[in-house]
Amino acid sequence: MDWLYQAISVPDPEFYENAQLHQSHLTKPTGSLGQLEEIAARLAAMQRTNQPQIDNVWISVFAGDHGVAEAGVSAFPQSVTTEMVRNFVAGGAAINVLARHINAHLEIVDTGIIQSLNLEKIISDRAGNGTNNFLKEQAMTVAQLNTALNAGKSTIERALNRQAKIFIGGEMGIGNTTSATAIACALGEFKPLVLTGLGTGLDQAGLARKVEVIQLGLEKHQKTLQNPLQILQCLGGFEIVALVGAYIAAAQRGLAILVDGFIATVAAYTAVKLFPQTREWFFYAHTSAEKGHQVILDELQAKPLLDLGMRLGEGSGAATAVTLLHSACALHNEMATFEQARVSTQIS
Amino acid sequence: MDWLYQAISVPDPEFYENAQLHQSHLTKPTGSLGQLEEIAARLAAMQRTNQPQIDNVWISVFAGDHGVAEAGVSAFPQSVTTEMVRNFVAGGAAINVLARHINAHLEIVDTGIIQSLNLEKIISDRAGNGTNNFLKEQAMTVAQLNTALNAGKSTIERALNRQAKIFIGGEMGIGNTTSATAIACALGEFKPLVLTGLGTGLDQAGLARKVEVIQLGLEKHQKTLQNPLQILQCLGGFEIVALVGAYIAAAQRGLAILVDGFIATVAAYTAVKLFPQTREWFFYAHTSAEKGHQVILDELQAKPLLDLGMRLGEGSGAATAVTLLHSACALHNEMATFEQARVSTQIS
Repeated sequence: MDWLYQAISVPDPEFYENAQLHQSHLTKPTGSLGQLEEIAARLAAMQRTNQPQIDNVWISVFAGDHGVAEAGVSAFPQSVTTEMVRNFVAGGAAINVLARHINAHLEIVDTGIIQSLNLEKIISDRAGNGTNNFLKEQAMTVAQLNTALNAGKSTIERALNRQAKIFIGGEMGIGNTTSATAIACALGEFKPLVLTGLGTGLDQAGLARKVEVIQLGLEKHQKTLQNPLQILQCLGGFEIVALVGAYIAAAQRGLAILVDGFIATVAAYTAVKLFPQTREWFFYAHTSAEKGHQVILDELQAKPLLDLGMRLGEGSGAATAVTLLHSACALHNEMATFEQARVSTQIS
Repeated sequence: MDWLYQAISVPDPEFYENAQLHQSHLTKPTGSLGQLEEIAARLAAMQRTNQPQIDNVWISVFAGDHGVAEAGVSAFPQSVTTEMVRNFVAGGAAINVLARHINAHLEIVDTGIIQSLNLEKIISDRAGNGTNNFLKEQAMTVAQLNTALNAGKSTIERALNRQAKIFIGGEMGIGNTTSATAIACALGEFKPLVLTGLGTGLDQAGLARKVEVIQLGLEKHQKTLQNPLQILQCLGGFEIVALVGAYIAAAQRGLAILVDGFIATVAAYTAVKLFPQTREWFFYAHTSAEKGHQVILDELQAKPLLDLGMRLGEGSGAATAVTLLHSACALHNEMATFEQARVSTQIS
């Protein structure tokens, strides 16, 4: 696992400053494009260019099953993970529609659903037949952890081979807000009640059960939860670990990342706890309706692009927000300067 | 001006309910697409269809000059209105870039800049050579008011002839946040200090002057500011009046409207004060950085799609947000249902 400890790339401050200067020459009041100006400048620094681009959007949806689902922490049965993977393959899910709409490359990566589907359209990078129930034992072995991290790294290699300029990671796995919430609690020493939300649509009794399950999981593994990798191993889901691996690999290789909702943000939080410099590579797509999301976003000092009350996962929030990055690049690259357009600058 | 008093169309509640029902059958937890579900349902009701579409986005940028600019209420000289109109024609402004990016039809309507440019690419629907300075007299005559309202109505006729499914109105006019703020103060009985913002980038001394100018304008015309049309006549800009006319005509003809930033929202507020049913036809694109915008949005109970700190006008915020309406329609029309995808529904 040597790759995990390779240096994180650094966005180039010179291109950032050039981009800011260029923005001040465009035919608009300085700062009047708000966050779109900052996005263009950050992308310029990441891509080491004066002409930032969001070509070849790459979306990987990681699917995995969770042993803890047997504790009744989701409004949906575990079989829905597999059913939704079939739906992804058939092209009927939200992320399929959005990927077509933005002309993105979409791949489905099986990191360990309950049983392999052996379908050609699925990338099989399985760490197991679902994780163990973390109420009973560690969710996965070290070997499984590494397999899932490598699944994420392989994704980034495929993306870079196809000249992707932005990476979106999505996830599917019944029970995975429980896993992600437990991870976030362990990473940030939060009480489960502070972070635990309704997931795909629990009622209040279900929510109370979920809080209790997370609390019990944290207590059971308390002595082992000493660093982010151990936390992932004890409480993780394979798809969450794969997201962490993908984010770290993307940051090493200088590929911009658009983070989706709660689970993806917990993966980003884990990556930042492991390697703080990864934070330079994240854009945050949206604030989801899941309770703990805002708390973790605040920890990351993240200012997401959208706040539409979405809470679907799959990368759907990021696939919705990525058009804003497109707009930011187009404005940066195509607007006339005051000089070109012979427009007067400010009076003062 | 009989057209102004024609009935406002009503979105069809049956299509709205059908759309909501359809959303509950799609392969996602109910409500998990957040505002995108509501957008699709509202568009279905407006378009009286089960398959809402955002084809043929129509953007009209109305330009006009303001007599009150001579009071020093802007960070830019008045000449910039004309210079920016030339920039629109040349294709170098933000709205040009965004319109190309979303494949929208963009037209530039001269409602009364200081001097006609006689350029073929400009639609000339001029109510005068700029408005009068409202510190000295009424900004426009009744005849000019009607000309500007008609300019807006003509825009909607052109849009409908081209099968537009959504209308975006933008504006350009040095001094027009002063005019819009004065209008909003008169309509809602707000104190100028509550609503007055920095516009294109005033300093604190400029802001104090702007507040004073608006206060003096309100005092001068106090007796005449009895209804929304009189308010427009005394304090308006031609481009703001044209926006009001366009919004009313769109609502009469059943064309969905995506409202841009502060000035466009003041025009929407005016239309709602005149004819409350127009509110059914508005989507709100974004919360701008201009101080008074949030206050007026709250008055309209509006929940805008974006909050990116934009404050450029020209329709740029709406042209940035319109892709979200596209996404909402695509998801609504193209996602598989639980039955089609053979995905289990909730446990409970």
